[in-house]
Amino acid sequence: MSYKIFLDEDEIPRKWYNLAADLPSPLQPPLGPDGNPISPDMLAPVFPMNLIEQEVSSERWIDIPEGVLELLYRWRPSPLVRAVHLEKALGTPAKIFFKNESLSPAGSHKPNTAVVQAWYNKEFGIKKLTTETGAGQWGSALAFASALVGLECKVYMVRISFDQKPFRKLMMETWGATCIASPSNQTQAGKAFLEKDPNTPGSLGMAISEAVEEAVTDSSGQTRYSLGSVLNHVMLHQTIIGLETQKQLKKAGIKKPDVVIACAGGGSNFAGLAFPFVSDKISGQDIDILAVEPSSCPTMTRGEFAYDFGDVAKMTPLLPMHSLGHDFVPPPIHAGGLRYHGMAPLVSQAIVEGLVTPKSIHQLECYQAAMTFAKTEGIIVAPETSHAIACTIQEANKAKEEGKEKVIVFNLSGHGLMDLRGYDDFLNNNLKDYELPQADLEKSSACMSDLPKPSTAKTGKW
Amino acid sequence: MSYKIFLDEDEIPRKWYNLAADLPSPLQPPLGPDGNPISPDMLAPVFPMNLIEQEVSSERWIDIPEGVLELLYRWRPSPLVRAVHLEKALGTPAKIFFKNESLSPAGSHKPNTAVVQAWYNKEFGIKKLTTETGAGQWGSALAFASALVGLECKVYMVRISFDQKPFRKLMMETWGATCIASPSNQTQAGKAFLEKDPNTPGSLGMAISEAVEEAVTDSSGQTRYSLGSVLNHVMLHQTIIGLETQKQLKKAGIKKPDVVIACAGGGSNFAGLAFPFVSDKISGQDIDILAVEPSSCPTMTRGEFAYDFGDVAKMTPLLPMHSLGHDFVPPPIHAGGLRYHGMAPLVSQAIVEGLVTPKSIHQLECYQAAMTFAKTEGIIVAPETSHAIACTIQEANKAKEEGKEKVIVFNLSGHGLMDLRGYDDFLNNNLKDYELPQADLEKSSACMSDLPKPSTAKTGKW
Repeated sequence: MSYKIFLDEDEIPRKWYNLAADLPSPLQPPLGPDGNPISPDMLAPVFPMNLIEQEVSSERWIDIPEGVLELLYRWRPSPLVRAVHLEKALGTPAKIFFKNESLSPAGSHKPNTAVVQAWYNKEFGIKKLTTETGAGQWGSALAFASALVGLECKVYMVRISFDQKPFRKLMMETWGATCIASPSNQTQAGKAFLEKDPNTPGSLGMAISEAVEEAVTDSSGQTRYSLGSVLNHVMLHQTIIGLETQKQLKKAGIKKPDVVIACAGGGSNFAGLAFPFVSDKISGQDIDILAVEPSSCPTMTRGEFAYDFGDVAKMTPLLPMHSLGHDFVPPPIHAGGLRYHGMAPLVSQAIVEGLVTPKSIHQLECYQAAMTFAKTEGIIVAPETSHAIACTIQEANKAKEEGKEKVIVFNLSGHGLMDLRGYDDFLNNNLKDYELPQADLEKSSACMSDLPKPSTAKTGKW
Repeated sequence: MSYKIFLDEDEIPRKWYNLAADLPSPLQPPLGPDGNPISPDMLAPVFPMNLIEQEVSSERWIDIPEGVLELLYRWRPSPLVRAVHLEKALGTPAKIFFKNESLSPAGSHKPNTAVVQAWYNKEFGIKKLTTETGAGQWGSALAFASALVGLECKVYMVRISFDQKPFRKLMMETWGATCIASPSNQTQAGKAFLEKDPNTPGSLGMAISEAVEEAVTDSSGQTRYSLGSVLNHVMLHQTIIGLETQKQLKKAGIKKPDVVIACAGGGSNFAGLAFPFVSDKISGQDIDILAVEPSSCPTMTRGEFAYDFGDVAKMTPLLPMHSLGHDFVPPPIHAGGLRYHGMAPLVSQAIVEGLVTPKSIHQLECYQAAMTFAKTEGIIVAPETSHAIACTIQEANKAKEEGKEKVIVFNLSGHGLMDLRGYDDFLNNNLKDYELPQADLEKSSACMSDLPKPSTAKTGKW
């Protein structure tokens, strides 16, 4: 049998899939500071218009430009791999497949949108991109993309990760980007955060505020901001993962998976694998689609579906999403990419519609799962990805109990070679799980109490 | 056009190629301490007999066992990639291809032999492997392989790398191996080195002494030593790289390459790509085959072809090879995997026969080449690999001057994500080139003066 299912380059999908076209209820619009829906024009200081058009599009299929394909070919199509060794170790009748997104030069799925955003910005005449990064995967990806298309790139990296992961900075610098710790004293927002707490470990929300500020205050008009998750156009670009996976499963003679699993921080690797299968589910196929988050940052499982800001300084529009409140500061788990208070509106809406089921898992179980994976399949995965594997093992064990030969597909979103400190802590029993008292969550979500509320009425066929 | 040429799993080579069968002059035997050829039995305390059989084999083709293929399938076949973006940046008419060996879970070509050696040791009833590692690529690979087949693994890591690259240790530990700095106080050899110089940075030669000592002094008889380069069976296992490349070039419609390039420390990634092409050259094809080493450790370009020990403590047999002398301590360049005093006997013999041309390049030129590669092809390569890229750029520029549409193939032996400190030093102008005065080399090679001399007479058709 074949362990890896490859696609040739001429089999790469030529269009991205836009879930917004198929959601039973329409996606609710982002709102401005006055509570009114914002127009595309209002986003123009932040993003180039060609990406804004994708952000608001309700077209089902959007063409991938030839210039973007040229960038994606550097590492795509990625292999779909049958995890036979994990199956054997678990003694499960389930067939487990993983989509290996860790083989990109930046080591994760993030370049799937980074190169696209860089390309569209370049097309629009932009010279410089700013962004934030948590664990460093997104910052590395945008540095990589900016090098390839020829843009300047400045990355605000959450201070705790900046200090813990010095090599991420070197990686970005090797590709020619600038990387500084956030909060910094280079923006008004950063200065305000530091004034409030000079020792703050930072957060994605704070770093977003800084990066957006730098983009919108550049008087040359040639700087834009780039976000690695949450937004509709980011989800769109990532769907190439799931679209390839569908072709590969077909090659393997599999009509449909029974369970589709990915971790979700802002939602991008989850959406990337899952949305094409959500489409199949809307068309009537029976698929469990699971989004896995850390129990210590339970945005989907314990957060409200609410209108909230994407950042701490409230510079972004209000987005309809599951949120723990923009003031929420997640515990210092190693999965930095999952330490975010919100969730992509498209993912949130799919949860509200009952199309996607959120799960939460504590980090010790995730690291244990990652160790099992490293010793069976041989790949040391990113701490974010370990959540998808822990959930996969749960599902494979369930299939064993039920005696069912289920097909499980998960997204191996990144390798962990830049994040080995977490494994070290795990091996030396220096890791703990963080229980979040309900009272704490209520406190953090209080910052959303005066904001408008999205409709939770299901208007569609669900 | 296609950038990447994939092979399906059923196209993987089923046999390794053994250059020893085709060398115009026979390979000269390793010698024991008494100056007489050693018998396979004498190696039995160090290696399992099934690998010793491969070491001394003169069969041209050796079957790859099914159990080994199952291990190799985890990441093989690896893609052959057309470096169009580098070609464009150089404005060269040359077609540049690279074999991407950096996609293995350990990040380099080293697992190609690590999983084989682990498998044969396991078959032979061995419970534990010991080894040395310089930069950490080999140690990581053997840790990975040991995890997959279920062996204990202990790695002696050259102290300077151990201190500079803490994450390599974590990587090995994640796969369940033990990694300690060498010289250590856990062996007699290590204690002697430390007594001589408590602050020694260590060397591969010292670490080999320690690892061999631990293997041969284990009274249970269930420990063996594993070497990641130099030996014939290691070269053999790596030929899967070149054999795949030949199939891939054929798929790309290319009859033969004009230039084949790889870096060479102990010789394994070079032999892996090059030996199948050396075979074609012996059969009459016109191919330049270039082995690239650091100018600061010029084993092939300035070392003697001599009988020398593989290690500092003189525990190994005498091998006929290019050597700077087993006492040679290379300058602290970042390409730790190329800091070795000797060269694989098979590679050395191929040089003596005129089949392989050695080149040396200084590290600044190599890092400059690696930066060009990172910004065009997008991959941050290992410092070892940067030598192959620097040479490729030289050859591509030569092709441009000559106006020739040459086909150049090089081995991208590993990624540099665990070795970013070198890039940092390069970007901050903290790197320098090391010139080795001839007098220093004469001094270091003096330790070989009383050893037997190999024949350098060419007895074959060259």
